Amino acid sequence: MRIDIVAFDEFTDIDVVLPWDLLHRVREPGWDIRIVGTEPAHHSATGLPLPTHGSIDELSDANVVLFASGMGTRRLIKDPAYLSRLKLDPATQMIGSMCSGALILAALGLLHDIEATTYPTAAAELRTYGVTVVEKAFTSTGNIATAAGCLSAQDLCGWVVERHLGTARRDAMLLGIQPVGRGLRFIDATQVATSYSQPSP
Amino acid sequence: MRIDIVAFDEFTDIDVVLPWDLLHRVREPGWDIRIVGTEPAHHSATGLPLPTHGSIDELSDANVVLFASGMGTRRLIKDPAYLSRLKLDPATQMIGSMCSGALILAALGLLHDIEATTYPTAAAELRTYGVTVVEKAFTSTGNIATAAGCLSAQDLCGWVVERHLGTARRDAMLLGIQPVGRGLRFIDATQVATSYSQPSP
Repeated sequence: MRIDIVAFDEFTDIDVVLPWDLLHRVREPGWDIRIVGTEPAHHSATGLPLPTHGSIDELSDANVVLFASGMGTRRLIKDPAYLSRLKLDPATQMIGSMCSGALILAALGLLHDIEATTYPTAAAELRTYGVTVVEKAFTSTGNIATAAGCLSAQDLCGWVVERHLGTARRDAMLLGIQPVGRGLRFIDATQVATSYSQPSP
Repeated sequence: MRIDIVAFDEFTDIDVVLPWDLLHRVREPGWDIRIVGTEPAHHSATGLPLPTHGSIDELSDANVVLFASGMGTRRLIKDPAYLSRLKLDPATQMIGSMCSGALILAALGLLHDIEATTYPTAAAELRTYGVTVVEKAFTSTGNIATAAGCLSAQDLCGWVVERHLGTARRDAMLLGIQPVGRGLRFIDATQVATSYSQPSP
């Protein structure tokens, strides 16, 4: 099981690192979570450098591909050479996006005839692809999903984990990052200690 | 105005990057947000390398100091040489922590006689410092604040922004990361376009 998170220059920091962190809390043997791009490292919108673990040229081997967001997407959707390197098959791969990452899915023709969501500032541009844009945190049709608003990374990662491991594993993953007293309790210590930074974050 | 986020090896990814991302959305001229540590880079619990912008030896010059969390805290609270380098003054600096970062505040004696919160897996250890541990997402007393559960970074950053810039600026910062349809609306596009990755994340 390989999950590739696609980054690029000017990515939105949290839209890469929140899915990255969440999916690592699943701790499922055999799950390989990677950040992929076109360079050895990409820089976020705030200037943080993030090394990549692989190339976008390897996406056809991934089981799940999640596109990050950020201003970088506006450049990439106008770059046919970049888009042609994204070898995706929605019949066999789960494909999702955070925020303006939906623009890349649209540019690849993956949102034809299905509804999708995106960040408010990308909604008008997404409609120019003929996409039915809905004002939702998350929407999925078959193997394609879009999430909008950084904290909706929970919905996107939840979609992946529920599909592969069920609702209980999904809920356990999400529990570990909730605010104490608003979803997470002190009595949950043992359960969340199984997250990646065990014995305790 | 300088805000230093203190990282260390085995930090919890999201507990550094969520505050980092959120505070960059404020876009207040003169605000300098840095990640500081003891090395040129620190590695997260999942192995992501994160370069630092400065040293913990410079914390006395910061207006706000926010401690990250992660397994690394368990080692640091037993390291007198490390703790002695943290020159903090709660009379003049706002000092806060995410999750198990509260252990460092406790080790420095900053939580004496006030209530504090922490991640479930650190609650028992925090009590050994004589701290009154409360099961809350966030609690503050004067210039000291503790937040618990990764998503409570919103409360911690909100505390900083409200104190310096008021509630409207705090709310605008937090709006930009909410899920669409659950706090963030498409009609908010202009408002959230002022976030760091303008014109649109």
